[in-house]
Amino acid sequence: MVNETVLKNFFKYVDENQDHYVDRLREAVAIPSVSSDPDRREDVFRMGNWLIELFKKLGISYEAVDVGNHVMSGKTLKLPPILLGSYGNDPKKKTILVYGHYDVQPALLEDGWNSDPWKLVEDSTGRLVGRGSSDDKGPIIGWLNAIEAHQKIGVEFPVNLKICFEGMEENGSEGLDDLIAREADKYFKCVDAVCISDNYWLGVTKPCLTYGLRGISYFNITVSGPGRDLHSGVFGGTVYEPMTDLIILFSKLVTPNGKILIPGINDDVAELKDEEMETYRSIEFKLEELQSAIESKTNIYDNETQTLQARWRYPSLSIHGIEGAFSAPGVKTVLPCKVSGKFSIRSVPNMDPDKITACVDKFLREEFGKLGSENKLQVECVHGAKPWVSSPDHWNFVAAANAVEKVFNCKPDLTREGGSIPVTLTFQDALNKNVLLLPMGRGDDGAHSTNEKLDRHNYTEGIKLLGTYLHEVAAIKST
Amino acid sequence: MVNETVLKNFFKYVDENQDHYVDRLREAVAIPSVSSDPDRREDVFRMGNWLIELFKKLGISYEAVDVGNHVMSGKTLKLPPILLGSYGNDPKKKTILVYGHYDVQPALLEDGWNSDPWKLVEDSTGRLVGRGSSDDKGPIIGWLNAIEAHQKIGVEFPVNLKICFEGMEENGSEGLDDLIAREADKYFKCVDAVCISDNYWLGVTKPCLTYGLRGISYFNITVSGPGRDLHSGVFGGTVYEPMTDLIILFSKLVTPNGKILIPGINDDVAELKDEEMETYRSIEFKLEELQSAIESKTNIYDNETQTLQARWRYPSLSIHGIEGAFSAPGVKTVLPCKVSGKFSIRSVPNMDPDKITACVDKFLREEFGKLGSENKLQVECVHGAKPWVSSPDHWNFVAAANAVEKVFNCKPDLTREGGSIPVTLTFQDALNKNVLLLPMGRGDDGAHSTNEKLDRHNYTEGIKLLGTYLHEVAAIKST
Repeated sequence: MVNETVLKNFFKYVDENQDHYVDRLREAVAIPSVSSDPDRREDVFRMGNWLIELFKKLGISYEAVDVGNHVMSGKTLKLPPILLGSYGNDPKKKTILVYGHYDVQPALLEDGWNSDPWKLVEDSTGRLVGRGSSDDKGPIIGWLNAIEAHQKIGVEFPVNLKICFEGMEENGSEGLDDLIAREADKYFKCVDAVCISDNYWLGVTKPCLTYGLRGISYFNITVSGPGRDLHSGVFGGTVYEPMTDLIILFSKLVTPNGKILIPGINDDVAELKDEEMETYRSIEFKLEELQSAIESKTNIYDNETQTLQARWRYPSLSIHGIEGAFSAPGVKTVLPCKVSGKFSIRSVPNMDPDKITACVDKFLREEFGKLGSENKLQVECVHGAKPWVSSPDHWNFVAAANAVEKVFNCKPDLTREGGSIPVTLTFQDALNKNVLLLPMGRGDDGAHSTNEKLDRHNYTEGIKLLGTYLHEVAAIKST
Repeated sequence: MVNETVLKNFFKYVDENQDHYVDRLREAVAIPSVSSDPDRREDVFRMGNWLIELFKKLGISYEAVDVGNHVMSGKTLKLPPILLGSYGNDPKKKTILVYGHYDVQPALLEDGWNSDPWKLVEDSTGRLVGRGSSDDKGPIIGWLNAIEAHQKIGVEFPVNLKICFEGMEENGSEGLDDLIAREADKYFKCVDAVCISDNYWLGVTKPCLTYGLRGISYFNITVSGPGRDLHSGVFGGTVYEPMTDLIILFSKLVTPNGKILIPGINDDVAELKDEEMETYRSIEFKLEELQSAIESKTNIYDNETQTLQARWRYPSLSIHGIEGAFSAPGVKTVLPCKVSGKFSIRSVPNMDPDKITACVDKFLREEFGKLGSENKLQVECVHGAKPWVSSPDHWNFVAAANAVEKVFNCKPDLTREGGSIPVTLTFQDALNKNVLLLPMGRGDDGAHSTNEKLDRHNYTEGIKLLGTYLHEVAAIKST
């Protein structure tokens, strides 16, 4: 049982120290740790050092792991360190691994920000605006704030905490997978469960726990024929045109309303069970939110449940574009000699990337054979990532749900997401432990967009949530 | 009857003055009269003045018509003058209008030229290499060389010549159509037939007369839905994707082997008559030439006749590309909100651009309706040009065929072309006179490419051909 007095004191301390936490976030936002900009690499290191100073202050033992160099824009650059931290080492306590990242997306005032993206400002509604406020500096500092609060109120920390903060998340997480594999039986050995706070509520008022992500298989389909681009006046009608072939192949992939036509692709989609169906009833989501996000009424489904299921529990196929064809404004009578069409399939349990590739390859070759064209076809899966789904019945999720009830006085939505967060699956596969996504920010935070924000309410209650979650983890039966 | 002694003397003079003609061409090539480059506009004027000096020297009365200004790359530029020349005014003689252009395509040494494109050089096989040598400075100077030769050998010129040389052919022929319409009943009033030397032999050894060109209808098909580009992870499967709709529409346009599927499009194609079929028997063309040009063996037909017919007497449809989708190398998981697909139909007699547009519009709207998509479709014909076909039985062609026999000792091929030369139809429609295309250069001259050349043989025999053609015109019965 969680000690309610302890929680009460913890909440009181957090409420009284809001401005201190905001100042701390302001300091972090002021360091433009953009991992995809070679000129900002020094700032990423600076941000790592800023965290190390905080680790020291809080008595967190740490290692700043050097994961080598990489090449970007023709330059060889040192990769920012992956910070591994340990707080507590009591064999009687559970050990929770928390992951986050201290690098951020690029941001320029002229992109359309209303204020300097590197100066955290609070507007009249309590929105803390600045790059990285929500993605992911607010959440990672949230964990540290929770530790500090426990120290200040003189309460024992409920779990052993392992920390993994990287500085390359927005640029491919280079070096991370290798490190996780290497440390799985060492640094990460005693971990009982993983918690990642790096996503968002579905909407703007109700917290959620996220238990699933779609995978992705990205394909590049190349049709080639002539040795050079040709003039359609001189050659149109006399040669097999790669563009015609590619367009016909692409037309066979998916229907306008999103049904994938490639045989075998839908076979492994997990059956929709009653328990899962039940979770959709209470979810805070309105079609108007989708229509507002897509700035149109071109949604396929007229109800929330089907829309959410289509987003996160069924596969989808999107055609992204064609490389090698005419793509500029205006008029050009070119007959392209080689065209590469790009599409991707968002995959769901229990689809497997290798089987997806096999189905796509077989189908496209068969269909290409039917064309009777003399051109050549090449099918390539350039990137395949598995879907991820966790069990919301696991004690890790139950502890988080209990924490949400104590902090927000409501049951959390159980959500999935349509995109992918590769590290989630990496941790689950490497450690074979339950992974929970426990977001701090709201669905409208604009993580990769202009005017990124974290509401002061979400920040403050988020610190309470992360701390309370750890108390619930300590209290819950883990068998 | 043509006076054979006169021709003999004319040929002898041309042969003896080859180097003089090459020097004259060298002077012209040295003026980089690139009409599509604002920084070269002065050179286009310089080239016009160079011709005017030659007109004066040869006693050709002329007018350099100012056709105003145009805007290019944000600059207002003076259009180069259209040179109208008159040589002879004998009511007993026929009047032939010759058209050509004194501007050229751009050229840079670094594009892959083996020598400075603005310095005419002759290689060991007699290829005169330089920008504009074949397109179209060689031919226009050819007419003037023929006049000069007649003066030098003291022989009366066989016809009245009207000259129309423009300086904007490679950049949309701005101002030309209006001028032709305006002068049809004035300057062009007495014209009996038109001769344009601005295309090429089909191959490299046999002269041809060209009597047909395909037209073109260029379409822009826009499908739009969401108000902004979306992330395929978040939205894939829940919205109607414009790219999916466009791809399906495009797949219904044409088969891989070039059969246009739009109802009504093929209805007006002129029937293939025996006389026309006969013309294909003797044409100098081998499939290997096509395969060499396309640098592959992806030709649809396994014989020359069907290939040539597909190129110039049947319509074709080519899909050029898509604007608004992802077109760069690499991977991007964008779901484009608005995509504009571009395709064109090469049209043939008796197809009509308005009817083509009506068929395309109706078909695409019907097919789009079947998709059940909530996206929006826009169908636009951005450019429509009629096909052109002339009668090779007309005295104008017969005179040219006779001239070919006298200069080259063979019957010319009767050819058409798959592309379009809009001024051909403009002259025919405005003057209601027969138009003949009488090329000087070979099929491998590389008119818009690097290392453009005109063979010395073609240049010299071409001068003879143009002069002899005028003698044949004078001798032939024109009713």
